[in-house]
Amino acid sequence: MRTRYGKPGASPGLQAALEEKPSPAFKVQVICYDKDQLTETEMPLQELPAPDPADKRVTWIRFPAMPDSASLAHFGERWGLHALDMEDVINVGQRPKTEIREGGAFTILQVPALDEDQSIRLRQVCLFLGPNFVISIREDGPPMFDRILERLCRGGGSGRIRTSGADYLFYSLLDATVDHNFPVVEALSDFIEDLEGELLEQTDTVTLDALHRLRRDLTLLRRSQWPARDALDPLLNEAHSPLSKKVRGYMRDCLDHQMHVNESIEVLKENAIGLQELYLSVQGHRLNDVMKVLTIIATIFIPLSFFTGLYGMNFNTEISAWNMPELNTRYGYPALLLLLLGIACGMVVFFKRKRWF
Amino acid sequence: MRTRYGKPGASPGLQAALEEKPSPAFKVQVICYDKDQLTETEMPLQELPAPDPADKRVTWIRFPAMPDSASLAHFGERWGLHALDMEDVINVGQRPKTEIREGGAFTILQVPALDEDQSIRLRQVCLFLGPNFVISIREDGPPMFDRILERLCRGGGSGRIRTSGADYLFYSLLDATVDHNFPVVEALSDFIEDLEGELLEQTDTVTLDALHRLRRDLTLLRRSQWPARDALDPLLNEAHSPLSKKVRGYMRDCLDHQMHVNESIEVLKENAIGLQELYLSVQGHRLNDVMKVLTIIATIFIPLSFFTGLYGMNFNTEISAWNMPELNTRYGYPALLLLLLGIACGMVVFFKRKRWF
Amino acid sequence: MRTRYGKPGASPGLQAALEEKPSPAFKVQVICYDKDQLTETEMPLQELPAPDPADKRVTWIRFPAMPDSASLAHFGERWGLHALDMEDVINVGQRPKTEIREGGAFTILQVPALDEDQSIRLRQVCLFLGPNFVISIREDGPPMFDRILERLCRGGGSGRIRTSGADYLFYSLLDATVDHNFPVVEALSDFIEDLEGELLEQTDTVTLDALHRLRRDLTLLRRSQWPARDALDPLLNEAHSPLSKKVRGYMRDCLDHQMHVNESIEVLKENAIGLQELYLSVQGHRLNDVMKVLTIIATIFIPLSFFTGLYGMNFNTEISAWNMPELNTRYGYPALLLLLLGIACGMVVFFKRKRWF
Amino acid sequence: MRTRYGKPGASPGLQAALEEKPSPAFKVQVICYDKDQLTETEMPLQELPAPDPADKRVTWIRFPAMPDSASLAHFGERWGLHALDMEDVINVGQRPKTEIREGGAFTILQVPALDEDQSIRLRQVCLFLGPNFVISIREDGPPMFDRILERLCRGGGSGRIRTSGADYLFYSLLDATVDHNFPVVEALSDFIEDLEGELLEQTDTVTLDALHRLRRDLTLLRRSQWPARDALDPLLNEAHSPLSKKVRGYMRDCLDHQMHVNESIEVLKENAIGLQELYLSVQGHRLNDVMKVLTIIATIFIPLSFFTGLYGMNFNTEISAWNMPELNTRYGYPALLLLLLGIACGMVVFFKRKRWF
Amino acid sequence: MRTRYGKPGASPGLQAALEEKPSPAFKVQVICYDKDQLTETEMPLQELPAPDPADKRVTWIRFPAMPDSASLAHFGERWGLHALDMEDVINVGQRPKTEIREGGAFTILQVPALDEDQSIRLRQVCLFLGPNFVISIREDGPPMFDRILERLCRGGGSGRIRTSGADYLFYSLLDATVDHNFPVVEALSDFIEDLEGELLEQTDTVTLDALHRLRRDLTLLRRSQWPARDALDPLLNEAHSPLSKKVRGYMRDCLDHQMHVNESIEVLKENAIGLQELYLSVQGHRLNDVMKVLTIIATIFIPLSFFTGLYGMNFNTEISAWNMPELNTRYGYPALLLLLLGIACGMVVFFKRKRWF
Repeated sequence: MRTRYGKPGASPGLQAALEEKPSPAFKVQVICYDKDQLTETEMPLQELPAPDPADKRVTWIRFPAMPDSASLAHFGERWGLHALDMEDVINVGQRPKTEIREGGAFTILQVPALDEDQSIRLRQVCLFLGPNFVISIREDGPPMFDRILERLCRGGGSGRIRTSGADYLFYSLLDATVDHNFPVVEALSDFIEDLEGELLEQTDTVTLDALHRLRRDLTLLRRSQWPARDALDPLLNEAHSPLSKKVRGYMRDCLDHQMHVNESIEVLKENAIGLQELYLSVQGHRLNDVMKVLTIIATIFIPLSFFTGLYGMNFNTEISAWNMPELNTRYGYPALLLLLLGIACGMVVFFKRKRWF
Repeated sequence: MRTRYGKPGASPGLQAALEEKPSPAFKVQVICYDKDQLTETEMPLQELPAPDPADKRVTWIRFPAMPDSASLAHFGERWGLHALDMEDVINVGQRPKTEIREGGAFTILQVPALDEDQSIRLRQVCLFLGPNFVISIREDGPPMFDRILERLCRGGGSGRIRTSGADYLFYSLLDATVDHNFPVVEALSDFIEDLEGELLEQTDTVTLDALHRLRRDLTLLRRSQWPARDALDPLLNEAHSPLSKKVRGYMRDCLDHQMHVNESIEVLKENAIGLQELYLSVQGHRLNDVMKVLTIIATIFIPLSFFTGLYGMNFNTEISAWNMPELNTRYGYPALLLLLLGIACGMVVFFKRKRWF
Repeated sequence: MRTRYGKPGASPGLQAALEEKPSPAFKVQVICYDKDQLTETEMPLQELPAPDPADKRVTWIRFPAMPDSASLAHFGERWGLHALDMEDVINVGQRPKTEIREGGAFTILQVPALDEDQSIRLRQVCLFLGPNFVISIREDGPPMFDRILERLCRGGGSGRIRTSGADYLFYSLLDATVDHNFPVVEALSDFIEDLEGELLEQTDTVTLDALHRLRRDLTLLRRSQWPARDALDPLLNEAHSPLSKKVRGYMRDCLDHQMHVNESIEVLKENAIGLQELYLSVQGHRLNDVMKVLTIIATIFIPLSFFTGLYGMNFNTEISAWNMPELNTRYGYPALLLLLLGIACGMVVFFKRKRWF
Repeated sequence: MRTRYGKPGASPGLQAALEEKPSPAFKVQVICYDKDQLTETEMPLQELPAPDPADKRVTWIRFPAMPDSASLAHFGERWGLHALDMEDVINVGQRPKTEIREGGAFTILQVPALDEDQSIRLRQVCLFLGPNFVISIREDGPPMFDRILERLCRGGGSGRIRTSGADYLFYSLLDATVDHNFPVVEALSDFIEDLEGELLEQTDTVTLDALHRLRRDLTLLRRSQWPARDALDPLLNEAHSPLSKKVRGYMRDCLDHQMHVNESIEVLKENAIGLQELYLSVQGHRLNDVMKVLTIIATIFIPLSFFTGLYGMNFNTEISAWNMPELNTRYGYPALLLLLLGIACGMVVFFKRKRWF
Repeated sequence: MRTRYGKPGASPGLQAALEEKPSPAFKVQVICYDKDQLTETEMPLQELPAPDPADKRVTWIRFPAMPDSASLAHFGERWGLHALDMEDVINVGQRPKTEIREGGAFTILQVPALDEDQSIRLRQVCLFLGPNFVISIREDGPPMFDRILERLCRGGGSGRIRTSGADYLFYSLLDATVDHNFPVVEALSDFIEDLEGELLEQTDTVTLDALHRLRRDLTLLRRSQWPARDALDPLLNEAHSPLSKKVRGYMRDCLDHQMHVNESIEVLKENAIGLQELYLSVQGHRLNDVMKVLTIIATIFIPLSFFTGLYGMNFNTEISAWNMPELNTRYGYPALLLLLLGIACGMVVFFKRKRWF
C-alpha cells in the first residue's frame, strides 16, 4: 500500500490539473434506471452532462479504469464533487474513510486480491453517493461489480435493487467491495494450513522467505482493513448519513461483514505468528537431533580411540617388564576388544536411559 | 470456524432460494405451553402455520438439524423473519451477534465442543425471539436443549419457566448455550495441566504438534467467544430490548457467565503460551545437557589421546639420546599412566567446580 | 480458580436444593450491636429468625464455613436473598462482582493466600448487605474478620464502627478482604527477589519448575484481582448504591487499595517475565561457556594430535631418504616438541585476543 | 528527541530572559497580504511593531532560525503571546500539542528528516495563529515553507490562499508540516525492503548495528508522531477552535494525513520487528548449517579413525595367534579399506535420509 | 516502591496514634506571605496553631522530614485534614492520586532519584491545599523546594508567585515535583546509550545483571509515574477543583510535563527491551563465531588425522604386496604430505565460499 501523495506545501485538491486539457478518449459506462426501464451507454467522460437534480431515475457512472488527473478534475468540478476527494481518488493507497458531504457521501476502501505468487495486492475503490447518482472508480484490474449490473438488469425491474434509490445501489457496491475480502482470507487460511502440515511433517519445503512474506502480507492486509470499520460506521450511525432508514438496516449487515473480515485477519495473524514460532521450534528440534548424533558418535568413539592410541605407543617392552606388558600377553588383543565392546555398550545403555535416541 | 459466505455482489438474503421448492420431508419439533398445559408435536416445516399473535401460549419451534435453504427461506417469509437473518442462519460460521428486531430479537452464538482427538469443533446456534414464540436452530451434532424441555414438562406447570413468557424461554436457551462452554474450558484446563506435568517430568511424550494445535484451538475458541459478550449485551442494556425487566435480571447472570468464560479462555491462552515457553526451555535445557556430556568426554580424552599419540611416534631412539628417551626408561609406561590419570582427575575436579555435572 | 458450575440448561438458583432437608447441625455466629450494647451468640442456621426491618440494631451473620446447599437455599429464601446470588455462593470460583439489590448489595471477592509450598490458593468471600444486616460467607480456611469483631467489642461503643450503620460494617469487611492481598503480594515480591539473587549468583538452585509455577500463579492472581476493581466500583459510583455518602468516602479509599493491589500484581508479572528471560539468558550464557571450553581444548589439541599422528606413520625410512627423514635426525623429537609448544601458545594468544577466556 | 527543560522549581515562562537585552541582529521575514497586494520585507525582530487588530491584511512572521531567548521573550510580550508557549518554543523537543488561546491557537509539531547516514533527526516547528497573523518558528535546518510563499505570490491574488484569512494560511503551514513525514516514511520503507532482500540473499552485509538503529529510530519517530494526532484534533473538533467552518473541512484532510502517517509508522515498526526476527532466524539457520557440516565430517571420520587406531596397536603378534592376526593376513589391508569405505558410505546414506545435506 | 500498609481489618485512619503522645521535638518551617511581606519561622509542630480562615496571607507549612505518626495524627485533627489522607502520608509507597476535599485538595506523588549505583529510589511527596494554606510533606532525602522558597523571597513581592493565592503555590510545588523526573529520565537515557555503544563494540563490559536491573528499574519508574497523570487530571478538569481558572492554565502545562515524562519513560522502556534483544543477538553472534572456529579447525584436521592414522597401522608389509605397499614406495611420504596439503586447502576454499571466515 505505497501511497501517492502531493508535495509538502502543494495546494490541496487538483487545481493544477484543471489547467491541463482532459484526454478526450477516456470513456465511462453510464447506467440509468428506475422501476420501469434501464439504459446502459458508454460515453466519453468529457461529454458527460452535469447531473440533473430533477431526474427521478438513478444514474450509476462506472469508471472502467483510473482516468488522467485533468479529466477527473474537470469532471469533479462539473459534478460538484469536493476537490479534496478528487485528490484522494488520484493519489491511490489512501486509508479507508468516509466523508459525509451535503446530500451524499464519499467512501474509499482497499480491496485485496492474491497475485499468482500468493502475495497480496491492494487496489483502491472510490464510491460517491449523490442525491440520485452513484459513481464508482477503481484503481485497475478485473471488473468488480458485474454481478450487481446483472442484478439490475435481471427480473424486469421487480428486484429490490431496482425499486430502491441510489443509496441502496451505493450500499450494494460497498457490500460487494467488502465481500471481496472473503476469498482472500480463505485462500490465506488454506495457505497457512498447508504450511503447517508441511512443517509438522518436516519436509524441509517451508522456507524462511515464505513465512516472512506471509507475515508482511498479513500486516499489510490488516492495516488496510482495520480502518474500513471506521470508514463504514458513519454511514450507519451518524445523524447526517445520506442513507435511508431501510438501507441502514442492510448497512449494518455490511458493517458486520467487515468486522468478520477484521477478526478473521486477526486469527490469520495469530496463526502466522504461531507458524513462525513452530518453524523456530522445528529448527531447534533438528539442531538438537544433529547435536545428539554428534554427541553419541563422538562420545562412544573418543574413549575407544584413547585405548587404541594407548596400545599404539612405542614404549620399549624389552627394557623392563613395567613397559606395556599387556602387549606381550597371550590374550591381550581379544581382551582389549572385549573391553572396548563393553565400553561401547555401556555408553549406549547410558544414552538410552537419558532417552537420547 | 470456516465461514460460508455469499458471492461478492450477490443479492442479500435468500431471495434466490425462494424460487426453489422446499423439501417436504424436513420436520421440526413444536412445543406449545402455558401455565396449564403443554403440547409437543413433530410436524413438517412446510406445514407449520404462521404464528398467531393472539395466541396467549408460548410456542417453541425446535429445529433438529439445519434445513435446506429453500425450506428456511419459505419459513422465514411466512413467519416474518428478516431476510438477512435467514442468510446468517444458512451461512454457518458467523460471528456471534444480536439483532434487536421489532418486538423480538435474533441471536447467533458459537458453541464449542471437544472432538475425540481433543480438538475444538464450533457449532452455530441461532435463536429467534418473537412476541409469543422462540425458534432455535443449530448447525448439527447432539441435541443441546433436552434439559430445558424436561424442565418445561416437569412439575405440572408450577415451575418458573412455565409461568413466565417467551422471553424467559429465550433467556433459558441462551444461558444453556453459554454454559456449554464450561465443560470445554475445564477439559482444556485439565489437558494443559497434564501436558505441564509431563513436560516437567521430561518424559518426551509432549509433541510440538500437540502444543501447536492447542494454541490454534485456543485462538479459535477465543475469537468465537469474545464477540459473544457484545452479542448478549444489547439484550440487557439496550432501550428497545424485548426482554422484560424481570428476565433482564436473569440475563445479567447469563452475561456474567459469558464474561467468566471469556476470562477463563484468557487464562488458558496465557497458560498455553507459558507451556510453549516451558517446552522451549526444557528443550534448551536438554541441549545444554547433551553439550555438557560431549564437552566433558571430549575435553577429558582429547588431551589424553594427545599423549598416547605422542608416544606412538616413531622417532629413531637409536640415533640419539634426544629422541624420545622416555620410551626406553624403566618406568616410562606406568609414569605416563599416572600422568594421564592425574590429568583426567584434574579435569573432573575442574568441571565439578564449574558445576557442570 | 477452578469454578463449580451448574449443568448447562439446569434451572437457575437453588430450587432443587429447596426440596432437600437442611442439615440441623450447621451453626453461625450472630452479632447484634448498636451504640449501647453488643450481643454475640452462636445458633443453628436453621433456627435463625427472618430479619426484622424495624430492628434499629445492626445484625452481622458470620458463617464459619460453607453450609450445605439445602441449608443455604432455605436461609436465602427466609431472608429474601436473590436465588442467583445463592447459586454463586455455592458455586465457588466465581469472578468478583457486585450486584446492587433493592436496599442492599451482594459482593463476591476472591482472597489469595500462600500455601506452605509458596503456591497461591484462592478462596471466595461473599458479602451481603441488607438494610440493617450484613452476612459474610467464606469458602473455608482460617477466620478472616476477627480483628473487626475485636474493634466492634472494644472501646465500649464509642468507636466509629459501632456508631455507624450496617453499610460501614460492610465497608470494613470489604476493606479487610482487599487488604488481605498485601501480605501475599509482598511475599511474592520477596520470593521473586530471592530467585533473582540466586539466578545472578548462578547457584543452579533455581529450577524451571519454580519459574513456571510462579508465572502460572501470577496469571491466576491477576485474573482473580482485576475484576475486583469493577466489582467495587458500583458501590462507590452507581446512583442506587446502598452506601451512605460518608461511607462512600471510605469506600473510595478501599477502591484505591484494590487498584494499588492490581498495579502491584502487574509489576510482579513484569518482574516474573523479566526473571524468566534472565533465566534463559543465564542458561545461554552457560552454554556459551561450555562451548568455549570445548572449543579451546579441542582447537588446541586437534592440530597437536595431527603432528603426533604424522610421526607415528610407518613409512619405510630405509627405502628412501624421502620417507620421513625427520625420524632419523638427531634433534627431531625435541624440535617437534618445541613446534607443538609453539602452536599451543599461538592458539592461546589467539583466544586471548578474541577475549574467549 | 532530547528535550530541553527548565530547572525543577524555576519560574514558568521566560521571565528571567525578559531582563536580558535582546540581540539586535536577529531578523525575521514579514509577509503581509490581502487579495490585492503582497509585501515581503525582512526586518530586525526587535523593531517589529505590535500587531494592529484593525489591519484587514494577513501578516505572516516567518523566523528563519531559533532566536535567542531574550529576543523571543520581548517579542512574545509585545505580541501578547502566552508566557508558557514562549517557554515551549525555546525548550525544543516538546511533545506535539495545541493550545487554544483566546482568538487564536498555538501548535507544536515535530518534523522528521533523514540525515546522510539514514538516521532520523527531529526538528520542532511552532506555529501561532492570531486574529490576523500567523507566526512560524522552527528549530533549524533547511527552510520548509518556501512552496507556500510561492503559492502566495503566484497568480496575482486569485488563489484560494490569498482570498482566505489567516486560519487558511495556518492550516496550509500545518498541512505542509505533516506532509513532510511522507518522504521520510517512504525512505524508511525502501530501506527496510533493501535490508530484507539482503538478508534473504544471505550476503552478510546486514549488521546488527543497522537493525538496532533502525528500530530505535522508529521508536523515536513513532513517539514524535502519535501525539500529533491529538495535537491537531482540537483545531477540528473543539468548540472554541479559531478555524472557520470552511477551513475545518480542509483541516479534516490534514488530520487524515496525520493518521495515515501514524498507521504507516506502525506498519514500518511491525516490519522492522519482523526483520529482526528474520535476522535471528537467518543466524540460527547458519548455525545449523555450520553444525551440520561439523557433525557430518566428524561423524564420518571418528569411526574410521578408530579402526586405523585399532590396527596401529603394537600387540605382539609373534607371541600368540590371538594377537591381531589380521595384520598378518594376505588381504588384511585392502579388506580394511573396503570396510572403511563401506562405513563412510553407510553414514552418507544415513545423513541423506535424515535430509541433513 | 514497597508500600507500608495497615493490618487487614485494622481501623482506617490514625485513630490509634491519637492516643500516643506526639514528639515535642519535631519542628516544621512555617512561611507566611502576601504581596507586602514574608515571614519564615521554624517552630515545633505541636505548637503550630490551627489555621485562621480569616487570614488573608498564604501559609506554607513545610515538613523537613516525615514526622512520627502521633505528631501527624494530632496535627491532622487540629487542621481538619481527612483521617484517610493522614494514613496515606504515613504509609509511604502509595500510588499517586488526588483527593478533592471541601475547599482544598490532597495530592500524593512519587519522585524518583538516582542512587550512586544508578538504581532508582522513589520518595513520596504529599501536598495539601487549603483555602489559605499549603502543606508539603516528603519522605526523606535532600530538600526539594528550595528554589521555590527563593522565588518567594526574591524581588520584593512583585513576582507572580507572591501576588497569587495558595493555589498558585500549590501548583508551583506540583510542577517542581513533576519536573524532578526530567534529570532522572535524562540520566537513564544516557545510561542506555552508553550500554548500547559498549554492546556494539563488544567490549564484554555489559553484564546481564546491569541489563536486568535497568529493566526492573524502568518497570518501577513507569508504574510510579503512569498514575500521576490521573492524579493531576482532576485538579484541572473536575468541576469542584479548588484551583482558580488562571492557575488551571498553568496546571495544564504541568499535566503536559507529566505526559512528556510518561512518554519518555515508554521510549526508555522500549529502548531497554531493544537493548536486551541486542545483548542476546550479540551473545548468539559470539556463539556462532566460537562454533565456526571449532568447526573449521576440527573439520580441517579430522580428515588429515585419518590419513596419518591410516599409515600408522601395522599391517605386515612383508607377508603380501597387498598390505600397505605405499609405505615402501620411494616418494610415499612426500606424496602423502602433498595430499594432506591439498585436502586442507580444499577445505579452506570450501569455507571461504560458504563465507564462514
